[in-house]
Amino acid sequence: MDAFTPKDPDFVRRTHATFASQDFMAHIGAQLTVVEPGRCEIRLPFRSELTQQDRFFHGGAIGTIADVAAGCSALTLMPPGARVLTVEYKLNLMKPALGDELVARGRVIRPGRTLTVCLSEVFAVTGARETLCATVLATMYCLIGEPGVDPAGG
Amino acid sequence: MDAFTPKDPDFVRRTHATFASQDFMAHIGAQLTVVEPGRCEIRLPFRSELTQQDRFFHGGAIGTIADVAAGCSALTLMPPGARVLTVEYKLNLMKPALGDELVARGRVIRPGRTLTVCLSEVFAVTGARETLCATVLATMYCLIGEPGVDPAGG
Amino acid sequence: MDAFTPKDPDFVRRTHATFASQDFMAHIGAQLTVVEPGRCEIRLPFRSELTQQDRFFHGGAIGTIADVAAGCSALTLMPPGARVLTVEYKLNLMKPALGDELVARGRVIRPGRTLTVCLSEVFAVTGARETLCATVLATMYCLIGEPGVDPAGG
Amino acid sequence: MDAFTPKDPDFVRRTHATFASQDFMAHIGAQLTVVEPGRCEIRLPFRSELTQQDRFFHGGAIGTIADVAAGCSALTLMPPGARVLTVEYKLNLMKPALGDELVARGRVIRPGRTLTVCLSEVFAVTGARETLCATVLATMYCLIGEPGVDPAGG
Repeated sequence: MDAFTPKDPDFVRRTHATFASQDFMAHIGAQLTVVEPGRCEIRLPFRSELTQQDRFFHGGAIGTIADVAAGCSALTLMPPGARVLTVEYKLNLMKPALGDELVARGRVIRPGRTLTVCLSEVFAVTGARETLCATVLATMYCLIGEPGVDPAGG
Repeated sequence: MDAFTPKDPDFVRRTHATFASQDFMAHIGAQLTVVEPGRCEIRLPFRSELTQQDRFFHGGAIGTIADVAAGCSALTLMPPGARVLTVEYKLNLMKPALGDELVARGRVIRPGRTLTVCLSEVFAVTGARETLCATVLATMYCLIGEPGVDPAGG
Repeated sequence: MDAFTPKDPDFVRRTHATFASQDFMAHIGAQLTVVEPGRCEIRLPFRSELTQQDRFFHGGAIGTIADVAAGCSALTLMPPGARVLTVEYKLNLMKPALGDELVARGRVIRPGRTLTVCLSEVFAVTGARETLCATVLATMYCLIGEPGVDPAGG
Repeated sequence: MDAFTPKDPDFVRRTHATFASQDFMAHIGAQLTVVEPGRCEIRLPFRSELTQQDRFFHGGAIGTIADVAAGCSALTLMPPGARVLTVEYKLNLMKPALGDELVARGRVIRPGRTLTVCLSEVFAVTGARETLCATVLATMYCLIGEPGVDPAGG
């Protein structure tokens, strides 16, 4: 069993449950479409409510799904009872996010007991064509215990 | 006239207009409450649609207003006709974002002709008490010309 | 006693000892010049061995002292026996680093039991004049236990 | 000719020349070992002068070669006469960097006229075994013109 083997056999259900409990996901219309060991995919169909001044997807919406894709990826490898919190992420916006929908694909690049490092890529999708428009490098925290305890352990 | 002196006498109106043209701001309920040379403030009242699994403000909502506060701050110092695009930002989530509202305060720490570097702090506000819950370090691009041209200039 | 009060009365000596045990600091000629609760300062005199192609201080040298200033700042607030490891940092290079020396000033913006968030600023110094040339936002890990255990806890 | 085709037929020689003109590379003992369109590799043999308190490679040395690998990768795709400057980078340290040498592999993930986004991975090498110990996500600036002009264009 290596670090990329799920420790929780129920990881798919748990990851979907965590996603579903984030009201902000429903508010923007994001869907969790793939959950695999160390990998997740989130899709965000275009809606004018999600745009910035040029009618592209807003950077905040892009960052949001990239962050959640990273967090869900990390969660797939965490033990039963664990919860995931974002410590930090860095987002590079590389192309205008213009398309029918966005797809964010997150994956774990360094699983760890306390901290997990993930990379997410966000693509704008138009028909069959995907264009890479953003990349995120993120650090996730594995919290075992009470809700509301913050990642910095203060 | 130094680099922190607005080059556009109309910078307040222009910054509000840019903010207002971002539909995502209305969708989450964010308000641009302060616009000064090199500084902006955005407020985001609590709504359950903005939460994550523990009922705190979602990190994506926090990142969004921090990014926009940074971008608006940068825009206040840009010449007439310029538009601002986010190149990248890095967000550290430091405390649970629990409160009546969030306030994001952005400021320019390095104005430049092409690139402007900004720092934003996001506080959770409960009554008169503000708690620092996130910090963003961001790079903004000054675009003079056509809408839709991407920051990487490709 | 708040989170910015040192838990180790011996924090000044300990921070200097940690700095002194990093051979890379001597190799580049860096000096730890200030150690206070939650704050440190590192100075790096100009040497041609530290330059990039334009004879400015190399970004790698800038990042190095900014990272160490952040780490030492975090260490000042950690309990006896703790060691500090860098989880991640983000560096914005804002001006050419040209001068007699660099000074990096780090400070804790969010102390925590496990993770501490720090901000460092690096100035180029020429005579009495200091120019801000770089900013770093960093996450530090408090390790209590064996040397060689990595921050991700793997 | 796509964005990953070198615009300068002399890009290999130019990239080596830029690397060689950075005195800090010689000071730490780094070698530029691979230069391809959009990709570079830098090797850094172990020396005790490069260590931190646990005798691992220092994070500053890791960040330095990751940054330079990213910058050299970006430079391979820039037009004749261009120079490359680092705007910012974000470094995640994921494992202790312990080995005979480090190898940093940088590659362009988004080439652009003005800004280029790169990803670098740093591996610790012991015999035939490589261990991923750090990842960098970086933004590079293409400067056409005078030396000493700063990336922010101020």
